[in-house]
Amino acid sequence: MFIHRYPQKSTWAELIRRPVLKKEEVSEIVSDIFKKVEREGDQALLEFSKKFDSADIGSISVSQDEIEEAETLVSEELKKAIQVAKENITLFHASQETEIQKIETMKGVVCWRENRAVEKVGIYIPGGTAPLFSTVLMLAVPAQLAGCKEIVLCTPPDKSGTINPAILYTAKLCGITRIFKTGGAQAVAAMTIGTESVPNVYKIFGPGNQFVVAAKEYAQNYGVAIDMPAGPSEVLVIADEYAVPAFCAADLLSQAEHGSDSQVVFITTDLAILNETIEEIHSQVEKLPRNEFAQQSLDNSHFILLNTVEEAVSLSNLYAPEHLILALNDFEKYIPAVQSAGSVFLGNYSCESAGDYASGTNHTLPTNGFARNYSGVSLDSFVKKITFQHLSKQGLQNLGKTIKIMAEAEGLSAHKNAVSIRLK
Amino acid sequence: MFIHRYPQKSTWAELIRRPVLKKEEVSEIVSDIFKKVEREGDQALLEFSKKFDSADIGSISVSQDEIEEAETLVSEELKKAIQVAKENITLFHASQETEIQKIETMKGVVCWRENRAVEKVGIYIPGGTAPLFSTVLMLAVPAQLAGCKEIVLCTPPDKSGTINPAILYTAKLCGITRIFKTGGAQAVAAMTIGTESVPNVYKIFGPGNQFVVAAKEYAQNYGVAIDMPAGPSEVLVIADEYAVPAFCAADLLSQAEHGSDSQVVFITTDLAILNETIEEIHSQVEKLPRNEFAQQSLDNSHFILLNTVEEAVSLSNLYAPEHLILALNDFEKYIPAVQSAGSVFLGNYSCESAGDYASGTNHTLPTNGFARNYSGVSLDSFVKKITFQHLSKQGLQNLGKTIKIMAEAEGLSAHKNAVSIRLK
Repeated sequence: MFIHRYPQKSTWAELIRRPVLKKEEVSEIVSDIFKKVEREGDQALLEFSKKFDSADIGSISVSQDEIEEAETLVSEELKKAIQVAKENITLFHASQETEIQKIETMKGVVCWRENRAVEKVGIYIPGGTAPLFSTVLMLAVPAQLAGCKEIVLCTPPDKSGTINPAILYTAKLCGITRIFKTGGAQAVAAMTIGTESVPNVYKIFGPGNQFVVAAKEYAQNYGVAIDMPAGPSEVLVIADEYAVPAFCAADLLSQAEHGSDSQVVFITTDLAILNETIEEIHSQVEKLPRNEFAQQSLDNSHFILLNTVEEAVSLSNLYAPEHLILALNDFEKYIPAVQSAGSVFLGNYSCESAGDYASGTNHTLPTNGFARNYSGVSLDSFVKKITFQHLSKQGLQNLGKTIKIMAEAEGLSAHKNAVSIRLK
Repeated sequence: MFIHRYPQKSTWAELIRRPVLKKEEVSEIVSDIFKKVEREGDQALLEFSKKFDSADIGSISVSQDEIEEAETLVSEELKKAIQVAKENITLFHASQETEIQKIETMKGVVCWRENRAVEKVGIYIPGGTAPLFSTVLMLAVPAQLAGCKEIVLCTPPDKSGTINPAILYTAKLCGITRIFKTGGAQAVAAMTIGTESVPNVYKIFGPGNQFVVAAKEYAQNYGVAIDMPAGPSEVLVIADEYAVPAFCAADLLSQAEHGSDSQVVFITTDLAILNETIEEIHSQVEKLPRNEFAQQSLDNSHFILLNTVEEAVSLSNLYAPEHLILALNDFEKYIPAVQSAGSVFLGNYSCESAGDYASGTNHTLPTNGFARNYSGVSLDSFVKKITFQHLSKQGLQNLGKTIKIMAEAEGLSAHKNAVSIRLK
């Protein structure tokens, strides 16, 4: 835990520098995995499952029976919660649909955009220490709303060769029927290249470890798009004197428990809040089942005291956090100043876990500073916007001279001729 | 020129397969260029200008005097044309602005998105055989509308060390003042890493040769975003018996003249139209100043006869062209069937050059099949959409149970605790 009191502005960038991720070794392993999947298809996936998941699975496809059985294994309480979350996520993402808006830029020249779903998309859901059925919701709901024709889901099996029932239940609830037991870089390779069982897709979504992240980057060499580049998860909390230290501590810990590489930053303008939040953390962390992860993450966390909230927001913009919590009394005043963040939580009752699960916003967000130049996942991520234009003869008459002069100045005679020949 | 009459559907994918771009050799050269720019800054850029542009430039920055002088060198006629195009492009891109829409997903739970400009963007404008001042409009207009704070433009100098005056005039017209004489992969490296003169940026836009394309992909390793991956420019024309062969030929040639690697595909349901269009091409190509490029591109072009327009649109979706011209009498009927294309031109008077220059749509579009999973450049390309949420205490009470059950099922106790502690 690093505590900085009134650091000089010139030191900020260094102070919150993220650890540099080592890529080279990983990318060689990923490249080998792609080659093997390309060469051997399903057989490679089966072997990788033995090696990495310690699972001997007969078939890569999850059967209809397995999906139906999963449904009986999920408690009614959890089903109900997943349904509530799905409703909110659906409501918010459906609001992102846009109407077609035809613009007559000149008499007889009409231009507009129409959305078309990315036809085939792949969703990757990690296995490991937490069964992320919430991520199924975050990716499958907008994919369905967008109208993607083929939605493929890959997730690694556990040692017994099965998939967590909550993941299967959620997938079914979202209308996904093509589910495959394969994880890691090999799952990304399968969705990129296609195997006998797994169809190839045009865009791949979802979180994962460093191998999955590297595999998604590598997939781009095959012409596949990805949701966004990624790094470890992050939260930055800005608190004033009205903040509640116990709440702040709980939010910081809910980030820290994700993994030992989670990034946690706390900025406050109030010394008492700083000290009390740190105390609260020490007391709350003890009770967490995942306190080992949380403790390692906290070891690298930053607690910063600044003079003003304006300064705090500036520092936050420089860092560009995935999650930003404004635990401020007058949070509204500072919204316009927020320039770079993935998702912003306002006031004392908007905890990050609301957005992680169920408020309606997406939890697939830019990390590692990518909030400077990327948006989180939304309905937009699952569509292409195609421009259309119609020029009447009169429209081309109105615009023709402009086109001809510009084409000539660029030395492109055939471009000019395409107008001249029509207006002859 | 390849002519295919009623090819079997099973052969389509092979028939329109694009040439595979060789990447490896290029990427090594690009990596070396990045290292040199990182090490030597401006000095590297000056040396590269000597080597690649045969230009001995004293300063990398374009001076105010140079910009003002350029203004005197552009004809009034061309200035007027550029202004008309700018107005149309502004009108269409301004229509892409979205209102903030607050959604109450549950009582007391309010979620919305707000746009924020990408703070620093870089525009690359190629030099070479055509001075693409039109691309300055296509990238600078939405950057300005979005509110990007820093807009940097790099373009290579000619042998005398100067920049085409139309490029400088257009840049000034769009409010760009930071213009640098540097081209190729080194320009992309400079905007990625930053040098003494050239500021680093968060997102890089613009077309270029294979080195520029490779450099933009390489820039992503430094955390910089790019507009989209790219390949050679393309057009696919679908014509029925009402199409005008001379118009179709002119459109195909205006694509072919871009370069020897331009991709040209023509599909028709009418044998006479097929033959007449080919005849028209032979007669029109002779008169073009760039007929050498056009001829080479035509050598690899495909002319396809199919039974129905439905089939033609299917084949087009499989190919996913950058530009699609529907030279059809009842083009409206086929709009919903268009699934993958960059920009679509409807009817006999909507020539591609209208959209290339002045109708209002953007001409920076996905090539090489990327229309399956990418949109063209729009206002969206210059902003991030940040999600915001506010939960009142009542809102958290309404949503709390759902969050707690889901967090517990994912094994994330601290996430659950962030709710419990607030509702205690």
